[in-house]
Amino acid sequence: MTTPGRKAVVLLSGGVDSTTTLHIAKSEGFEVYALSFRYGQRHVHELDCAACVARAAGVVRHEVLDVNLRAFGGSALTADIAVPKHRDLATIGADIPPTYVPARNTVFLALALAWAEALGVADIFIGVNALDYSGYPDCRPEFIAAFEHLANLATKAGVEGQARFRIHTPLIHLTKAQIIRKGLDLGVDFGLTSSCYDPRPDGSPCGECDSCELRLQGFADLGLHDPLEKRP
Amino acid sequence: MTTPGRKAVVLLSGGVDSTTTLHIAKSEGFEVYALSFRYGQRHVHELDCAACVARAAGVVRHEVLDVNLRAFGGSALTADIAVPKHRDLATIGADIPPTYVPARNTVFLALALAWAEALGVADIFIGVNALDYSGYPDCRPEFIAAFEHLANLATKAGVEGQARFRIHTPLIHLTKAQIIRKGLDLGVDFGLTSSCYDPRPDGSPCGECDSCELRLQGFADLGLHDPLEKRP
Repeated sequence: MTTPGRKAVVLLSGGVDSTTTLHIAKSEGFEVYALSFRYGQRHVHELDCAACVARAAGVVRHEVLDVNLRAFGGSALTADIAVPKHRDLATIGADIPPTYVPARNTVFLALALAWAEALGVADIFIGVNALDYSGYPDCRPEFIAAFEHLANLATKAGVEGQARFRIHTPLIHLTKAQIIRKGLDLGVDFGLTSSCYDPRPDGSPCGECDSCELRLQGFADLGLHDPLEKRP
Repeated sequence: MTTPGRKAVVLLSGGVDSTTTLHIAKSEGFEVYALSFRYGQRHVHELDCAACVARAAGVVRHEVLDVNLRAFGGSALTADIAVPKHRDLATIGADIPPTYVPARNTVFLALALAWAEALGVADIFIGVNALDYSGYPDCRPEFIAAFEHLANLATKAGVEGQARFRIHTPLIHLTKAQIIRKGLDLGVDFGLTSSCYDPRPDGSPCGECDSCELRLQGFADLGLHDPLEKRP
């Protein structure tokens, strides 16, 4: 499985999914170049977590890029729109909620592709999940396939055959509980992560948004407690 | 042709092609939202030109977004790599030169899509050209088609059918001379624009890079002088 010297760009938000994805990339022998974004998100606390996750995992480099999607707005995460709370878990994913950020994963993958090509890297990891997720269109397999196709047309490396870009989505068909299990098996400290869309001023999770509910249910399904619950 | 109230996002670098594209969008009845990027380009002078072009054209809004591709490097436009000069016009476009910026148009279109969706806009204009161009892979029709396909999978508006995103490329099959002719017919003042990859400190063009050579040849083919040549 391990191929020494293989490099990968890993999109890292600092949550459960991207952190587990980063550790999967490492376990497959990739040297990790982690990429995070200061995109005007209300939950900017996640970037502190991303930095801790990257440091703990010993990545080669962690880049935090500014790209102010708040200039465009249109989302509960980047504008003064309320984050939905206390939604029924059974209905999450059935519609596209206001926490959807227009074209966010397209923007993030485009920038990951830019960095990958500049580094001479063909492998990009993204922790999208189409099962226990919020229903975002840019988390679905057909979106990922279309982006991978685009990546190989869009780039010098793709066109000249120096690289065949591959978008790895190791979590796409897993439940949240399976993702957490996988992360724990790889030694992830989920106490370093943050998933909340609307954290308190001290960074602790609200416990009530979709992302918190999915995370708490994932730990509960495994008979475990989220380490973030243990905070005083 | 004119449909009152139709809006479009237009990518505007401040050069001949994007400026002509903006005026074509206007002539087709679109209210223009112009989008430029401070991406770490050595020819940042083009942003002053973009602002002038946007003002002269009376756009609804001109947004200049910071997205620091210099953090990634890999191009003569975003790193300490020499801009090729005095290339034979007949060979320009035959290879992909070092002025290629990794995944730049993918990044720019992704951000245009993000703004378009937030605005409730389905039409995006980009002044790519696959004839008198530098050979960049992300200027070709197959790239544009792949991005348009992606856009309609990636977004809430695309998936829910509120918008069918369309990437307009009115210049893609024109020669540089045809583009300039079109712009002049629409009243463009090319004296406001900048095309040079490596301008002098005062913003005046070097006259020697691919972009300058293509521009000068375009005016010459029409028996005209570039207004930028008239500068003292």
